[in-house]
Amino acid sequence: MKAIIQQDTDNPSSLELTEVDTPTIKKGEVLIEVKAAGVNRADLLQAKGHYPPPEGASEVIGLEISGVIADAGDSDFEQGQEVAALLAGGGYAEYVAVPKGQVMRLPEGFSFEHAAAVVEVACTVWSNLVMEAGLKEGQTILIHGGGGGIGTFAIQVAKALGAKVAVTAGSKQKLDRCRELGADILINYKEQDFAEELKNQCDVILDIIGAKYLKQNLKALAKDGHLVTIGLQGGTKEDLNLGIVLAKRLTLQGTTLRSRGTQAKAEIVAATVDNIWPMLEDGRVKHSLHATFPLAQAADAHETLESGEVTGTLVLTV
Amino acid sequence: MKAIIQQDTDNPSSLELTEVDTPTIKKGEVLIEVKAAGVNRADLLQAKGHYPPPEGASEVIGLEISGVIADAGDSDFEQGQEVAALLAGGGYAEYVAVPKGQVMRLPEGFSFEHAAAVVEVACTVWSNLVMEAGLKEGQTILIHGGGGGIGTFAIQVAKALGAKVAVTAGSKQKLDRCRELGADILINYKEQDFAEELKNQCDVILDIIGAKYLKQNLKALAKDGHLVTIGLQGGTKEDLNLGIVLAKRLTLQGTTLRSRGTQAKAEIVAATVDNIWPMLEDGRVKHSLHATFPLAQAADAHETLESGEVTGTLVLTV
Ligand SMILES: NC(=O)c1ccc[n+]([C@@H]2O[C@H](COP(=O)([O-])OP(=O)(O)OC[C@H]3O[C@@H](n4cnc5c(N)ncnc54)[C@H](OP(=O)(O)O)[C@@H]3O)[C@@H](O)[C@H]2O)c1
Ligand SMILES: NC(=O)c1ccc[n+]([C@@H]2O[C@H](COP(=O)([O-])OP(=O)(O)OC[C@H]3O[C@@H](n4cnc5c(N)ncnc54)[C@H](OP(=O)(O)O)[C@@H]3O)[C@@H](O)[C@H]2O)c1
Repeated sequence: MKAIIQQDTDNPSSLELTEVDTPTIKKGEVLIEVKAAGVNRADLLQAKGHYPPPEGASEVIGLEISGVIADAGDSDFEQGQEVAALLAGGGYAEYVAVPKGQVMRLPEGFSFEHAAAVVEVACTVWSNLVMEAGLKEGQTILIHGGGGGIGTFAIQVAKALGAKVAVTAGSKQKLDRCRELGADILINYKEQDFAEELKNQCDVILDIIGAKYLKQNLKALAKDGHLVTIGLQGGTKEDLNLGIVLAKRLTLQGTTLRSRGTQAKAEIVAATVDNIWPMLEDGRVKHSLHATFPLAQAADAHETLESGEVTGTLVLTV
Repeated sequence: MKAIIQQDTDNPSSLELTEVDTPTIKKGEVLIEVKAAGVNRADLLQAKGHYPPPEGASEVIGLEISGVIADAGDSDFEQGQEVAALLAGGGYAEYVAVPKGQVMRLPEGFSFEHAAAVVEVACTVWSNLVMEAGLKEGQTILIHGGGGGIGTFAIQVAKALGAKVAVTAGSKQKLDRCRELGADILINYKEQDFAEELKNQCDVILDIIGAKYLKQNLKALAKDGHLVTIGLQGGTKEDLNLGIVLAKRLTLQGTTLRSRGTQAKAEIVAATVDNIWPMLEDGRVKHSLHATFPLAQAADAHETLESGEVTGTLVLTV
């Protein structure tokens, strides 16, 4: 089969379509003929050598795909069935082997391209907002980077759950977009201190910044508040005041979806299909494609995402 | 009624039995005629002015009592019924008003003295080990200060749940006691580095030290590990490396039982009676009284606890 292989590990743009062995499936896996593969920020990091795949995962880049079952293995899927899948790697290819628990039906009415683009963000948002932080109706959530890929999706899911949503973003344009998606409180982090605006009010914070926002996040959290950090765009090390953590009974948590085990991923995938697919199907949550590229042009797709001018997901088509 | 009142706020030993108004009950409360009141480390802190009662709570010291219902208010309890109760304050007195959700039956076969001594430690251990950290059969838990009041109780509950138990303590004598109670891994923190011994192995850590152990605790935690900090004997401020928190998908949590709301306390009390009372009744968990003092001698009881030579709970009798 053909797959995107990074020819020069020092050159993140040296992504070339190359003939490689078709993967063979192990017990509990299915083989999928890939139709479309989503492009994520983590893929850029991996091409730069900053985000090596977890042990046992494919060296080929790509965390989410859609396609048809080529070999159903010992699963209940059928050959030819149209599916999407959450991967630990291997998506930028004609075929990929996936643990059966990470394979899901397409949301109704979704094309292969659109389905491939929504898997990773949907699983990330559902697992963190609900399965980890336990967000409930009537609670207040702060979503950092509300205008980003995770942010725009998380706003809509939080609103669908009946939460009050505050967001941070760096421009009026992004904040306007957040408002359109339903955000209730808009904070321009370049002009306002979100911790002052939201002092002791946030039941949940979805954080992609890390160290730089830790102190402010603790201040913004309400009693029994839950901070879930999924990105470290603002660094890793910071002073922690455990006095505040105890006094406000706070929970601080960090997660990454990709590193989780097969069992945990299967639970997340099942819950995401049960809860997010209906939101996509009836339009409570909207998700947009920014552009599609043929698989051979993966390097161009990476360059486009890197440029930062992207407002939806990029997808490679096979 | 008579209650212990601190005559001089600058003198923690000026605890004198004084005539005060009997509390009146509000909606949802019951009035209890106190028979015995447990003495906790937090009481010493309160007498020193370091641990002011939460808003609305009695100024009188005392977090746990047993006695008989004097006025059942709108509750299902009956006048004269023998009960124990978890308090936000007010225990060192002849009568105390308590939200009905914090009132519980005595464990079968327990005297008033013994029941009064077990409420706070049982609620603290069950809420943190199970309701917060989710400790399960087959998991490994590290209990800091295994020879202390919380520690000795937590070891037994964790063993009853089927967990593997590691402890830290500062002397061979205390570690021997931990072994007798069922601890599997004994670490003398004055001679060994627990983080080296337990690197990446702990699913749950029950921590009473805070800042001084934060780095080591992160190192000792396994993937998906949960650190629950309930005491800050080793200070409040320390560097946190969020890179480790994300990579290992850790949860860091701080709690205090006393500050929780009525609803949360009622849930904890109910779960404690359901789960811990049977362990006390069939002997899976043993709990010992160190000594009893008449209520008027509260100052002596505090002095004894302060001395550090105490191996069980101290109780005041009314
Ligand atoms: N742990 C996981 O499982 C997991 C899964 C998926 C993604 N992630 C992580 O989540 C993060 C977001 O991913 P994404 O796909 O949404 O990326 P994205 O589309 O590039 O969004 C990032 C957003 O961050 C905002 N931002 C930058 N600095 C900020 C600051 N100081 N305060 C508030 N917002 C700020 C940017 O908005 P402005 O232009 O307004 O600054 C941008 O919209 C990444 O770090 C990614 O690695 C983690
Ligand atoms: N948050 C809550 O809801 C809550 C509720 C109850 C209690 N607490 C807190 O929990 C803590 C323990 O309470 P307790 O009643 O069990 O007190 P305790 O009986 O005095 O026990 C404290 C133990 O800490 C040990 N210790 C001291 N330094 C240590 C170190 N560096 N490493 C490991 N162990 C160390 C001591 O053992 P060695 O002699 O061996 O050093 C002692 O056995 C207190 O801080 C208390 O305030 C919190």
